[in-house]
Amino acid sequence: MENHTINAPTGFLAAGDHIGIKKENKDLTLILSEKPAAAAGCFTQNIVKAAPVVYDLTIIQSGKRVRGIVVNSGIANACTSKQGYNDVKSTAEALAALAGCKADEVLVCSTGVIGVTLPMDIMLPGIEKVFGQLGKDKSSGENAASGILTTDTFTKSAYEEIVVGGVKVKLAGIAKGSGMIHPNMATMLSFITTDADIPTELLQEALNASVKNSYNMISVDRDTSTNDTILVLANGMAGNATIEPNSEAFGQFSTALHRINKKLAIDIARDGEGASKLMEVTVSGAKTDADARTIARSITSSNLFKAALFGSDANWGRVLCSMGYSGGMFNPNQVDVTFNSIAGEINVLKDSSPVIFDETLAEKVLSEKEIHVDVRLTDGNYSATAWGCDLTYDYVKINGDYRS
Amino acid sequence: MENHTINAPTGFLAAGDHIGIKKENKDLTLILSEKPAAAAGCFTQNIVKAAPVVYDLTIIQSGKRVRGIVVNSGIANACTSKQGYNDVKSTAEALAALAGCKADEVLVCSTGVIGVTLPMDIMLPGIEKVFGQLGKDKSSGENAASGILTTDTFTKSAYEEIVVGGVKVKLAGIAKGSGMIHPNMATMLSFITTDADIPTELLQEALNASVKNSYNMISVDRDTSTNDTILVLANGMAGNATIEPNSEAFGQFSTALHRINKKLAIDIARDGEGASKLMEVTVSGAKTDADARTIARSITSSNLFKAALFGSDANWGRVLCSMGYSGGMFNPNQVDVTFNSIAGEINVLKDSSPVIFDETLAEKVLSEKEIHVDVRLTDGNYSATAWGCDLTYDYVKINGDYRS
Repeated sequence: MENHTINAPTGFLAAGDHIGIKKENKDLTLILSEKPAAAAGCFTQNIVKAAPVVYDLTIIQSGKRVRGIVVNSGIANACTSKQGYNDVKSTAEALAALAGCKADEVLVCSTGVIGVTLPMDIMLPGIEKVFGQLGKDKSSGENAASGILTTDTFTKSAYEEIVVGGVKVKLAGIAKGSGMIHPNMATMLSFITTDADIPTELLQEALNASVKNSYNMISVDRDTSTNDTILVLANGMAGNATIEPNSEAFGQFSTALHRINKKLAIDIARDGEGASKLMEVTVSGAKTDADARTIARSITSSNLFKAALFGSDANWGRVLCSMGYSGGMFNPNQVDVTFNSIAGEINVLKDSSPVIFDETLAEKVLSEKEIHVDVRLTDGNYSATAWGCDLTYDYVKINGDYRS
Repeated sequence: MENHTINAPTGFLAAGDHIGIKKENKDLTLILSEKPAAAAGCFTQNIVKAAPVVYDLTIIQSGKRVRGIVVNSGIANACTSKQGYNDVKSTAEALAALAGCKADEVLVCSTGVIGVTLPMDIMLPGIEKVFGQLGKDKSSGENAASGILTTDTFTKSAYEEIVVGGVKVKLAGIAKGSGMIHPNMATMLSFITTDADIPTELLQEALNASVKNSYNMISVDRDTSTNDTILVLANGMAGNATIEPNSEAFGQFSTALHRINKKLAIDIARDGEGASKLMEVTVSGAKTDADARTIARSITSSNLFKAALFGSDANWGRVLCSMGYSGGMFNPNQVDVTFNSIAGEINVLKDSSPVIFDETLAEKVLSEKEIHVDVRLTDGNYSATAWGCDLTYDYVKINGDYRS
């Protein structure tokens, strides 16, 4: 079977293994490009930025080409002062020494508990061990997807192929959630490799446009993390003619990149901590793009509606309430709300008046694993889609004692 | 024993009883002043406003004096279109007819399920029944405090006395929570009576100042309700000289009013849906008043920190994270965080560096019913205090199926 994992694009190697940061499960992932790759990234807008975010930001902003990424899970290396930053540098140096490149050609990411420094006596030999496992095969790619997880219950990956001027170009991505998810300009951790030949500025442009409609439209708990990072490496080894601004090829590439980001973002929402259901909310007929986004995201973020969804309760009042305090503008007297899933559809609000609906069917519709909430306004022509999940006992359980 | 309930101020009568809107428990409260009272109010900033909020807003803005308040619990009369508004008017007319006043001298409030219209065939005879129970005694006042509750587990009331120019003036308040609590300019429902002689504009001025530091600083679930309302009636029957602007008496009155609002607001946070603990967060050393408020409120609103509090987990990383995404500005490298309760105190962060602390003591401190989080910044001289509660299994349970 063909390899569609993170190391599928030409010239990329990957590996992941358990090195001992977590008690069990894989906790270190390496991604390496044979040639220096154009690199783009988006990072958390949280004022409190983890040490690796501060470090990567400098490299991405410099426009430097990049050879590799080191990712550890279990410890976030956030709120760790100077020691944290020094540990990031030592981590980058360790991979650079093994890969034969400069330390500033290596990006570093961390996810896990805040306020704990990295055990460098475990990290450094761990990097060497996992470096020895770097491979082009599918299982190496799958190990890399596992090595970045924390409370996630499944690996998240996506793959796309496009043909640019007769040349096949591959894109692959992996991501992790699943708590402290309310991204603002990026998500928890997401990595995309591509063998496309594309200038750094164009890569960043395509990424920014995509993030706005993927990661920045999901929420698990309205807590924007200190570590949110998405990185894209494009090493050009597909051999396509360099992608030009405003070209058809750029359109193709941007579309493929967005399909990957959207798939990964939705998977993060689906696998939100404790989640039993994915919620997709579409708001249409809004006056502005910002109104549509704000309203859609407010619905996916409402604890009350999330708990109602867990209980399969068609509580549309909470939908309208969360729209009303969102900050987005709309005419509250002209709102239609419909819930649907593979089990059927129920219109619960028409012109802001309650519709008498079949409660048995409603419960059936809302008991499915994927619930769509369709909100129609009459204020304009803008629409937006946001994703979230339900609020469950397990969310409270997981977060009541995460550190232990 | 002296009566310190809502009908304690001279000239106020109160009653509360079960009329059949809810399956059981009291669901209707009446408050009546023998003489027309100056009335002040604050209401939800949610765009989606319940019918009674729209109605009361007009009366309060007109500056009219008011005779009474009708409050039902069980049904919020929100998102109920024209029918909802007509029902509010019929409700006001019903009390007005009994009390011998005009309909626009009666305020109406509702709390409960959104999207359901009031059963007027139950409401109208219910108002007549409860009107017959209006009294000056303590048990009538206690019944009134019960009649406004929904998922609250205890009644919330407060009482103050001041002496103005040798004349005793009384203030009394009642309130209810306990879900959809993240007030913006008001709280779910709160009613204050006073026999002070004070002009309407001054009453509103004192109320606005107080609300900012009481109701607007609490959160249970970050969901701003459609029905938030606080009303103050001042009937002047204490016989004090009319309170003048900028006078010592106005200072006394404002302070007493604020003590009542603060007590009621904290009780609402303490009795948040499913809550097992009250959280009080003080942020000091902020650059501006807005920064202090925003940061404090963000901490009390973080699902992740609320869940950690439930688990008695000293997870200060979540405190810092929620500060960072709050929108308030601060130097993230100069933060001190201390947790304390009657069981002791633990400093967990000093100059933004983790402090090694005694985990056993930490768990003991955080296992208490009232937890204080003290955040010290070095950016300026502003401080603010916010209140919230933990996120528990019971919150999910209560809200997973509230309508049934």
